[in-house]
Amino acid sequence: MSNDIRSLIEDLAKKAKQASLELAGASTSDKNDALQAIARGLESNRKILLEENQKDIDAAEENGLSEAMVDRLRLTHERIDGMVQGLRQLISLPDPVGLVIEEKKRPNGLSIQKVRTPIGVIGIIYESRPNVTIDCAGLCLKSGNASILRGGKESLHSNRALASVIGQALADSPIPEDSVQLVPTIDREALNHLLTLDEYVHCIIPRGGEGLIRFVAENSRIPVIKHYKGVCNLFVDAEADLEIARQIAVSSKCGRPGVCNAIENLIVDEKIAPAFLPECAKELVEQDCELLVDEKAASLLGDFPTKPATDEHYDEEFLDLRLSIKIVASLDEAISFVNRFGSGHSESIITKNKKRAERFLREVDASSVYWNASTRFTDGFEFGLGAEIGISTDRLHARGPMGLEELCTYKYWVTGNGQWK
Amino acid sequence: MSNDIRSLIEDLAKKAKQASLELAGASTSDKNDALQAIARGLESNRKILLEENQKDIDAAEENGLSEAMVDRLRLTHERIDGMVQGLRQLISLPDPVGLVIEEKKRPNGLSIQKVRTPIGVIGIIYESRPNVTIDCAGLCLKSGNASILRGGKESLHSNRALASVIGQALADSPIPEDSVQLVPTIDREALNHLLTLDEYVHCIIPRGGEGLIRFVAENSRIPVIKHYKGVCNLFVDAEADLEIARQIAVSSKCGRPGVCNAIENLIVDEKIAPAFLPECAKELVEQDCELLVDEKAASLLGDFPTKPATDEHYDEEFLDLRLSIKIVASLDEAISFVNRFGSGHSESIITKNKKRAERFLREVDASSVYWNASTRFTDGFEFGLGAEIGISTDRLHARGPMGLEELCTYKYWVTGNGQWK
Repeated sequence: MSNDIRSLIEDLAKKAKQASLELAGASTSDKNDALQAIARGLESNRKILLEENQKDIDAAEENGLSEAMVDRLRLTHERIDGMVQGLRQLISLPDPVGLVIEEKKRPNGLSIQKVRTPIGVIGIIYESRPNVTIDCAGLCLKSGNASILRGGKESLHSNRALASVIGQALADSPIPEDSVQLVPTIDREALNHLLTLDEYVHCIIPRGGEGLIRFVAENSRIPVIKHYKGVCNLFVDAEADLEIARQIAVSSKCGRPGVCNAIENLIVDEKIAPAFLPECAKELVEQDCELLVDEKAASLLGDFPTKPATDEHYDEEFLDLRLSIKIVASLDEAISFVNRFGSGHSESIITKNKKRAERFLREVDASSVYWNASTRFTDGFEFGLGAEIGISTDRLHARGPMGLEELCTYKYWVTGNGQWK
Repeated sequence: MSNDIRSLIEDLAKKAKQASLELAGASTSDKNDALQAIARGLESNRKILLEENQKDIDAAEENGLSEAMVDRLRLTHERIDGMVQGLRQLISLPDPVGLVIEEKKRPNGLSIQKVRTPIGVIGIIYESRPNVTIDCAGLCLKSGNASILRGGKESLHSNRALASVIGQALADSPIPEDSVQLVPTIDREALNHLLTLDEYVHCIIPRGGEGLIRFVAENSRIPVIKHYKGVCNLFVDAEADLEIARQIAVSSKCGRPGVCNAIENLIVDEKIAPAFLPECAKELVEQDCELLVDEKAASLLGDFPTKPATDEHYDEEFLDLRLSIKIVASLDEAISFVNRFGSGHSESIITKNKKRAERFLREVDASSVYWNASTRFTDGFEFGLGAEIGISTDRLHARGPMGLEELCTYKYWVTGNGQWK
């Protein structure tokens, strides 16, 4: 690696650390003013944003990227409006910083307050969607964190233009200009070096496909908050309301199959499988869903086009209209199956039996466990967080949807009157 | 690395993961019974514990280990009593698992509960003190986590004997036997392999010197909670109560200089330095403390034996009777100094001025910030946590003293009545 790139990245990280110390003490109104200034900057720089984005689009088409990829890359007036709206919504959310989370008085008279504070410097590593630049910069800024943004190579022109809008807005605000910085190169070695700078950068959030996330997790010396994939399971218990089960099975697969909280595996108790499965399969097939089934399910679904399911299928995040089906003999078998194949994201049981529901909620090891509801609700907005920077399937720090509070840590304020032992 | 060691470690980690799923649902009374059984096992196996420990002591003396090292290694009846007492204290603490931390009802009728759960599998990497084996096994067990213990090579016989007591106690209890496992080899490659098994192990807590902690942090793919060192600062503001300042300066350095929450740097506002420093220095020197001072302090301390302080001194965790002294012109300079040289552990300001105190509390970037009290209070027991597995200077998950709650994560229980969109 060239020393130039090393020192460029180190300089950027040091500036972010310095900015984070000032930003941690910034007032809510200063932070909101900065968000407002960025929103206005986006509105008044539409022309240049669309022009710079067109360069990325042209390059993508020249390089033969898929239509879906090009679409993800594209900025439109509507999408710029969406970013502006996102920033204005952040302004309306309460400032998470400074809140006293816990407070106690010790027998020696010390008052101990646990106070919410920003984490410090957050690195966001993402792929081609340029809106991530604005969304993540806004979320980090509102939560008092300095951010270092490293987007994908396909959107470099767009990201530079967006970062320049942010930079201008911050330069005219009381918020330190280095509070948001874009890594100006897509050199892989620059990313590798950034991931070692744990002295200056306190948290890395990768957003994108499993490959990117694994790369970051395996190469980072800085703590990473991530989710690799969403293999979500729906279990239809022997005492399920079959109407509810069918509605949720079909909608949580076919409603939007490309998202991480859609289900991939449908698990059915053998006692209700004959009554439930054919009818449910009918609706799924009508919606063009392909069914991958175990032997027992195959024997119940003779009238339908099915394929045999393997363990690899049960382990796969399809992100498309395929659904694996598994028949089980008991709740125990269902829980074991979920804990074996689930990715720790979202799992649901449909049952009228409270005891069995509670066992599922307690024993299934995932960020979000549902009783008589769809896994599709795992989302920062649906959970009432007001915003979302991602969903964590990790266990440390944050689990499940992450909003502004999850971008914070805490410190202890201890007040005394001379206590020394 | 031999495949045997790899598969040994992998097998152990898989068993821990399996045990953790059962242990997560264990009742408080079953966990307490297991802790009680371990305590009784320690009491009834004193003879063999002391015999096995003697093998470690003999080897240590043969290898010429320092007296301090040998002392750390040594088990005595008193120290066994201490471990037993620690376990019985854990029994008396509330079970952190299962508590509903937050609860909300969404407009669509979904009830969302944030429920505290164990993290899963925790790896403890430590050095020679054998009591860590029992302390950490107990803390993990009470918080519903399976633990993998990897102690230092000097205490291998002692640790094996302690692990065997734990194993017998668990075998006779309803808690899965694999809930606590000792890595049976001190092969470095076994440790390296363990640190890659993020599929089975969810958190690593290293306990020991900075070298061990850095090694673990740099080689672990599993999230690590740690503190490298405690470089704690005490700032005596221009408006300090000089009596309080002197009492805290002397006691927080000389009370127990070898601990992480003792101070290493004394920062004094130049406006009160002439009135404060000579008198404070007198007491420090009387207690055999060596003073490393900047030029301004040197000119005030002409009557005392001092040495010049360098940046390396300000950055060093002495763990002995040396203290660096720095004179500053302002609160701003003090805060910058603390944020530059402090290790994010514990920092204190002595002042009668509330505004300045609050700026210090807010702007100093450390796990625990004090106003008119000694940094020596950063400790799980002093903070009322009832127990302590360590002190984190990290920002993610836990910061400051870590007790049973900090050994937990959470998950969301979402209850509906058929919601699907």
